[in-house]
Amino acid sequence: MAPRPHSSQSGLSVQSDRTVAVHRSLPEEVAVAMVFDGSSAAVMMATPADLQDFATGFALSEGIVTAPDQLDGFELAEHPNGLEARFWLREDRAEALAARRRFMAGPVGCGLCGIDSLDAAARALPLVGDGPRFTRAEVACATDRLRDQQPLHDQTHATHAAGFLLPGQGITFVREDVGRHNALDKLIGAMARQGTDASAGAVVMTSRLSVELVQKCAIAGVTTLIAVSAPTAHALRLAEGAGMTLAAFARGGGFDLYAHPHRIIDGVPDVA
Amino acid sequence: MAPRPHSSQSGLSVQSDRTVAVHRSLPEEVAVAMVFDGSSAAVMMATPADLQDFATGFALSEGIVTAPDQLDGFELAEHPNGLEARFWLREDRAEALAARRRFMAGPVGCGLCGIDSLDAAARALPLVGDGPRFTRAEVACATDRLRDQQPLHDQTHATHAAGFLLPGQGITFVREDVGRHNALDKLIGAMARQGTDASAGAVVMTSRLSVELVQKCAIAGVTTLIAVSAPTAHALRLAEGAGMTLAAFARGGGFDLYAHPHRIIDGVPDVA
Repeated sequence: MAPRPHSSQSGLSVQSDRTVAVHRSLPEEVAVAMVFDGSSAAVMMATPADLQDFATGFALSEGIVTAPDQLDGFELAEHPNGLEARFWLREDRAEALAARRRFMAGPVGCGLCGIDSLDAAARALPLVGDGPRFTRAEVACATDRLRDQQPLHDQTHATHAAGFLLPGQGITFVREDVGRHNALDKLIGAMARQGTDASAGAVVMTSRLSVELVQKCAIAGVTTLIAVSAPTAHALRLAEGAGMTLAAFARGGGFDLYAHPHRIIDGVPDVA
Repeated sequence: MAPRPHSSQSGLSVQSDRTVAVHRSLPEEVAVAMVFDGSSAAVMMATPADLQDFATGFALSEGIVTAPDQLDGFELAEHPNGLEARFWLREDRAEALAARRRFMAGPVGCGLCGIDSLDAAARALPLVGDGPRFTRAEVACATDRLRDQQPLHDQTHATHAAGFLLPGQGITFVREDVGRHNALDKLIGAMARQGTDASAGAVVMTSRLSVELVQKCAIAGVTTLIAVSAPTAHALRLAEGAGMTLAAFARGGGFDLYAHPHRIIDGVPDVA
């Protein structure tokens, strides 16, 4: 029912010595409305794949629910301008949704003042737990191992991925999206739906490490975040406060280690 | 008054043969509230630089104003959780802001249904004008020329840039940000404040070509959009509808040409 995650498009390839017709597989990008109990909580441009994972992860990341079994009756509805990912909330979460809706109204302008909006953007994060240890070798090759499991990127050369790395077991879950934060919400939702404990491994990202990735990982209980590119300074401060290990610039067999480096060790990994 | 756009942070550089302390200059990322007539229209995570350009470009891109002289009394206010970029609207735009505020409330959950939200995400775009021609050589080296003018990226290796390319004159404006859409709003705002006609040149981006970049360029009247990475399929459809030329994968001396290729020519550029 939903559009495919990529589609073939025709263009011209212009090189210094020739111009030829090309057919590229480009990533799709669709407006997806997150609808809980019949009300839209947000609209995001996203890759139309794994949308039940996406809505589940979004609901968890945004605090609309605290466990996937509080969500009921998933339905995907097509609309001329996009897709609606619809869930019903178990009755005891309806109050949290109402509170969340008032909260989310702030940043986008229902007349609240700027101070309330900025406070809403800076939500408090939980302290993450102790979590597993990873070897330096595991971290150094994590983004290469993730790269081996990105079929949409193989097709389009233009999508992000979020992967879940278990000590001694490699990358065990991957989700892809045109947006890095969507890829992470999909990963968190997929793991929650299958009962996988997010605090048992690390999240690996193909992107830079921005504030919202640290926020989503902290709320999911992830203790180590590994990425191919740089952290922002603010993301690093949030990770320090939340007790999370950040490994950045993870490529070419090396990485930079920031914030709580004790989880990255020499020697054998923490196999559960 | 605002924080610096990057800051020095300490970490460990872990390579296969050694581990050493490193000091990296990481990009800052700050919550910036866009406040018009005392009300917050949006909060975005952004690089704290060129914030008057950012607020001007945002107001233009979002249709809050149609010209920069409708904005008055810029002020940047510090707040414990971020920055407020404040403008006052000339009286005749206050009504447009009120309409816009109702419009923006949709996607984020003040109780409107998902259908209204999806419609809001799919705003109609104007048809762009005829616009200038560029030579193939100009397009092929555009992202390299932009790369020469990214001082924040030189420091941090992790920020996007938006540049303005004039036929026969190279890149004449550049703005940088951790977010590609923010970099474009800053560019549009900077040019508007200096009276530069956005329809006279092309926009060059360090990112993929997503829907919101085509939307912002169409509203600014930009007729050609050049980027280092892929367009999404939906961005391509929007550009086709708006009459905009898209050049993607512009790197290594070549590029792909999609949607209205007639503006890219052999021979001499369209020098004004």
